[in-house]
Amino acid sequence: MIIVMQKNIDKALSRAVEARIRELGYEPHVIHGESREVIGAVGDERGKMVLQSLESMPGVEKVVPILKPYKLASREVCPEPSRVEIKPGLEIGGNELIVMAGPCAVESEEQIVQTAHAVKRAGARILRGGAFKPRTSPYSFQGLEEEGLKLLAMARAETGLPIITEVVNPRDVELVARYADILQVGARNMQNFALLKMLGQLDKPIMLKRGMSATIQEFLMSAEYILAEGNRRVILCERGIRTFETATRNTLDISAVPVLKEQTHLPVVIDPSHATGHVSLVPSMCYAAVAAGCDGLIVEVHPDPEKAASDGPQSLRPAAFADMMIKLKLFADAADRSLPGVGGSL
Amino acid sequence: MIIVMQKNIDKALSRAVEARIRELGYEPHVIHGESREVIGAVGDERGKMVLQSLESMPGVEKVVPILKPYKLASREVCPEPSRVEIKPGLEIGGNELIVMAGPCAVESEEQIVQTAHAVKRAGARILRGGAFKPRTSPYSFQGLEEEGLKLLAMARAETGLPIITEVVNPRDVELVARYADILQVGARNMQNFALLKMLGQLDKPIMLKRGMSATIQEFLMSAEYILAEGNRRVILCERGIRTFETATRNTLDISAVPVLKEQTHLPVVIDPSHATGHVSLVPSMCYAAVAAGCDGLIVEVHPDPEKAASDGPQSLRPAAFADMMIKLKLFADAADRSLPGVGGSL
Amino acid sequence: MIIVMQKNIDKALSRAVEARIRELGYEPHVIHGESREVIGAVGDERGKMVLQSLESMPGVEKVVPILKPYKLASREVCPEPSRVEIKPGLEIGGNELIVMAGPCAVESEEQIVQTAHAVKRAGARILRGGAFKPRTSPYSFQGLEEEGLKLLAMARAETGLPIITEVVNPRDVELVARYADILQVGARNMQNFALLKMLGQLDKPIMLKRGMSATIQEFLMSAEYILAEGNRRVILCERGIRTFETATRNTLDISAVPVLKEQTHLPVVIDPSHATGHVSLVPSMCYAAVAAGCDGLIVEVHPDPEKAASDGPQSLRPAAFADMMIKLKLFADAADRSLPGVGGSL
Amino acid sequence: MIIVMQKNIDKALSRAVEARIRELGYEPHVIHGESREVIGAVGDERGKMVLQSLESMPGVEKVVPILKPYKLASREVCPEPSRVEIKPGLEIGGNELIVMAGPCAVESEEQIVQTAHAVKRAGARILRGGAFKPRTSPYSFQGLEEEGLKLLAMARAETGLPIITEVVNPRDVELVARYADILQVGARNMQNFALLKMLGQLDKPIMLKRGMSATIQEFLMSAEYILAEGNRRVILCERGIRTFETATRNTLDISAVPVLKEQTHLPVVIDPSHATGHVSLVPSMCYAAVAAGCDGLIVEVHPDPEKAASDGPQSLRPAAFADMMIKLKLFADAADRSLPGVGGSL
Repeated sequence: MIIVMQKNIDKALSRAVEARIRELGYEPHVIHGESREVIGAVGDERGKMVLQSLESMPGVEKVVPILKPYKLASREVCPEPSRVEIKPGLEIGGNELIVMAGPCAVESEEQIVQTAHAVKRAGARILRGGAFKPRTSPYSFQGLEEEGLKLLAMARAETGLPIITEVVNPRDVELVARYADILQVGARNMQNFALLKMLGQLDKPIMLKRGMSATIQEFLMSAEYILAEGNRRVILCERGIRTFETATRNTLDISAVPVLKEQTHLPVVIDPSHATGHVSLVPSMCYAAVAAGCDGLIVEVHPDPEKAASDGPQSLRPAAFADMMIKLKLFADAADRSLPGVGGSL
Repeated sequence: MIIVMQKNIDKALSRAVEARIRELGYEPHVIHGESREVIGAVGDERGKMVLQSLESMPGVEKVVPILKPYKLASREVCPEPSRVEIKPGLEIGGNELIVMAGPCAVESEEQIVQTAHAVKRAGARILRGGAFKPRTSPYSFQGLEEEGLKLLAMARAETGLPIITEVVNPRDVELVARYADILQVGARNMQNFALLKMLGQLDKPIMLKRGMSATIQEFLMSAEYILAEGNRRVILCERGIRTFETATRNTLDISAVPVLKEQTHLPVVIDPSHATGHVSLVPSMCYAAVAAGCDGLIVEVHPDPEKAASDGPQSLRPAAFADMMIKLKLFADAADRSLPGVGGSL
Repeated sequence: MIIVMQKNIDKALSRAVEARIRELGYEPHVIHGESREVIGAVGDERGKMVLQSLESMPGVEKVVPILKPYKLASREVCPEPSRVEIKPGLEIGGNELIVMAGPCAVESEEQIVQTAHAVKRAGARILRGGAFKPRTSPYSFQGLEEEGLKLLAMARAETGLPIITEVVNPRDVELVARYADILQVGARNMQNFALLKMLGQLDKPIMLKRGMSATIQEFLMSAEYILAEGNRRVILCERGIRTFETATRNTLDISAVPVLKEQTHLPVVIDPSHATGHVSLVPSMCYAAVAAGCDGLIVEVHPDPEKAASDGPQSLRPAAFADMMIKLKLFADAADRSLPGVGGSL
Repeated sequence: MIIVMQKNIDKALSRAVEARIRELGYEPHVIHGESREVIGAVGDERGKMVLQSLESMPGVEKVVPILKPYKLASREVCPEPSRVEIKPGLEIGGNELIVMAGPCAVESEEQIVQTAHAVKRAGARILRGGAFKPRTSPYSFQGLEEEGLKLLAMARAETGLPIITEVVNPRDVELVARYADILQVGARNMQNFALLKMLGQLDKPIMLKRGMSATIQEFLMSAEYILAEGNRRVILCERGIRTFETATRNTLDISAVPVLKEQTHLPVVIDPSHATGHVSLVPSMCYAAVAAGCDGLIVEVHPDPEKAASDGPQSLRPAAFADMMIKLKLFADAADRSLPGVGGSL
């Protein structure tokens, strides 16, 4: 932390700040500027947030944090990229580009099994589908809940694809964990710390979505909640942030990919469906995400989007998904990523 | 909903859209424009969100929602302002301006009881204090939990002030409800729908804070979750939204007060402490909020901000709070609001 | 500037940064942290931006600016509030609250003269009206240009009200200055530096509107452009910033008032009409702005808003404006501001 | 336009709105909903903005625009992509991916000529360099002005690369046009309509940068200003928008590429340097932009970034630029774009 003192003030105020820094267990270090003093506080980084309260002391103009407040999520602690194993032979964060696909919500056995076969055929390695749906309106379809989980498990049994599905209530963590291969935390729950702590105690991979207005630093702090409880299998997912632009549902923050790659060792996945909200924009955002260096994609696919219970306008039909995968292979090659099972004969 | 068709397309596509609108239980109504058709869908408002999926049909350019998706929260359903009773003789949403004050977090018996006496003396009618603290960092102080609730109850017993405190986990709703007079939903949990649904089943007032990047419409949809479960005692709280500006912690959306007053019957409270993040900005934002027409304020007060476990820089000292209340009385008078127990002898 | 070095790097990299700091004319000051070095650069503040380029040197993690980059606009240089004289006996920034009112665009002699009389009667001290209109669409009404300036001068001659009007092209500065008492820089031109420099050479008051997405610091840097050329009569105007919220045209950043009051000596005016975009929200935002401590208001008033050439939905009718002024007087009193000529007999 | 009436109002109010719609030259078309009327206004699209003023009429809840307000920029008017010729054999918007590169500011003959040779060797087809620099601070380097233009012309003479440079003042349009092959409008001037109108009268290509907080629709309206004056050679440039995220200078809105490609026929270029502000993020954003479908890139390259007069931290060194170009070729191939002169022997 850097404590910036006001201009031309009584030196006694600076001395009081120095004393308080020492009291809190840090070492003050004064720089005498032309017209004001600036005090650095040296010491263990993790507890430094308490220094923020110095802003209330007389004579202090502001307190500027210098270091990142996360630790386990940081590249400095773990310089090598983490690979998160989903099942033997399938990991996210390695050389293979992992595509997860499926409907926004599980609606029926036919819908989910048919979609699972279709996305598998096109090269997806993981099946997505929501059983617990957080919806803006209480009058919207809220998901099939445990019934939906059972249908997902059925689709897995038929296709061999592992399943990723969202959990929204700490109470349901155990239930969802019985069925899912990866538990997803949605954007609205990125700072549902009670949920994060419970997931940190599981022995299952967690995909954490960035909150709609979360900074990258806050995103990593939420990952830190899971990591700090002992679960190191965390996958990050950028899914668009809220901005003033209304042409897209959200604004895909594509530069979050290289920023995250610099700051953290955790794998990074992109969700172009929620980011854009329009199916016509999804393929080009898949290509861009891979070119930017992401480790995977999660894409909404629905056999009949105009009848979807939710998110129809952003869901690809299976044929369009298959076409996208073939073109994606070209970009995966350019990015030096493998995408097995796609476009083999090209 | 208004369905805008693409320009110069085959009429058969429009007819298919009309058929699908009927299938979903609505009545299509076509406007023939100069170069395209626009189709209105008439019928019950609440289920209309399913019409959004028409955007996936061929020939559709976009689907534009026309009406508000909330109902119980709306002025159209309940034209008179609601008054939420906290205890006999104390309600939010009536003529009296209600000020809630206290520390961000409950830290000790001495701290909370001393603060309670001080804020009561200055004219506050409700004591605030956090026992469960959602913190960005897992390494920050997370609150005293049930011990904190007990200390709040002790402060209430000593001063007679009802207490408001946050609940973050659906699991704790019953516990918090045993102690609190008002349960608060924090900004990070505005779309924690599992929590909202449980609170909707309580017989206690709920103060719902606006999410950092929630639109006013989404804010009202979250209120609707509580109302739809049967609990009509909902208080709304604007606490700043996230913008590009960094001079303040958040940007207080003061115009949300008159917008909410037009759209909903629910009372509106302002939190200037979280909105600004700097104590020097809090008093003027209290005055502005009252001038804008809010029903109450919730203000952070701490006896020793530079030693606060959280949010020190935005906490008023008791003396500064008392000064603010005296000046606030002038603005309450101008707004034709009573503020009993303040500045009587002026 | 604070230069943060990367963790555990070769000390030679830090020494190179120190050398470069000296080369640029500053004094380096090293703090040895637990795992990295942090280097402060001490010296003249204004040129410090060149230090930002150190971020390109090997081993540098980031460069953090500590001080404000403006000088003439700053409270530190000029601790007393500035009063900007408009004409003898009329100044902005003194005890009197100054209300400017009039139509968005000058449309006809009848319209502007009639409005001028009406707003004067209600207590406005300055007449606003646009002759050069920056419009988003090339197909929208672009203003009457010099003809509009002449009509404004006519309205001034009839009522004695000084006039404020916008200038958008450096070429027109001289022309507009021949007619206007205050020249306005619109939000879209806040960083039109060629225009700002020319206005800095005038002997006329300038009202500078904050850009739609300008930080407060950038806003003050734009004021600095005018001040640095020698014109010290600068008035700042907050008119709403762009956010994700769509219920209002922009989001009025009301906390900008106390922030600006802390950082600068320049007077601050609020434009509630452009900030909200809806006439029903304007009066409460006027009251809030005064309670927050602004020095003046600029309000759109039109005799016939549904026939206005621009901004009808946000223009008050003269009668509504007069009602607002009477209630505003109560808030001006509470804020200890005079508002002569309003509600005298109440 | 769609005019939404309030609920349960006197039908006479709707009839008055209908009459006013006819008066303005449109045809009203009423839809009778369950509890309110909705009125469509049919007629010529370009003048429709005047209908917005109906929002001031009694009984009107809101006015919703349905159609795009631009025309010449629109795909509907010009379905085929436009190719903008820079010189014989060099066009933007065709199959070839065009890379423009060079320093933020022209600083000296040596700097610009050396950079020109380096970027040409690496495969750039156009040289960028600023002679007139709009800078946030009046105390920052403001560019070499005409001297800078001469140095650019010298670099062109030496290398044959056409030059692109910014113009900020309508007064300088003629001067800059004498030297430049493409005139650039910077983000801060996107709504400097006086400048846009003058550029619309030139017979030179114009590259228009998106404003920091401009919606895509506003961006296209600014292009429309140039097109409407007769200059059809407009190139659009996305360079990052302002959001709450601070890890990057701005947020690159990568989805703007496919959105623009759907809505307009004009070519789209990406500026990853200003968008990110950090050199380490530039290459991956170049790859992503090409994958997303852009027609070109504009990249900052400086021989000695730590000594750059501006934007050092976001400028690639020539060697890093050359490396990036070689990898870019792979993504250009995947996107089926040619990039002649790069990586030929790979």
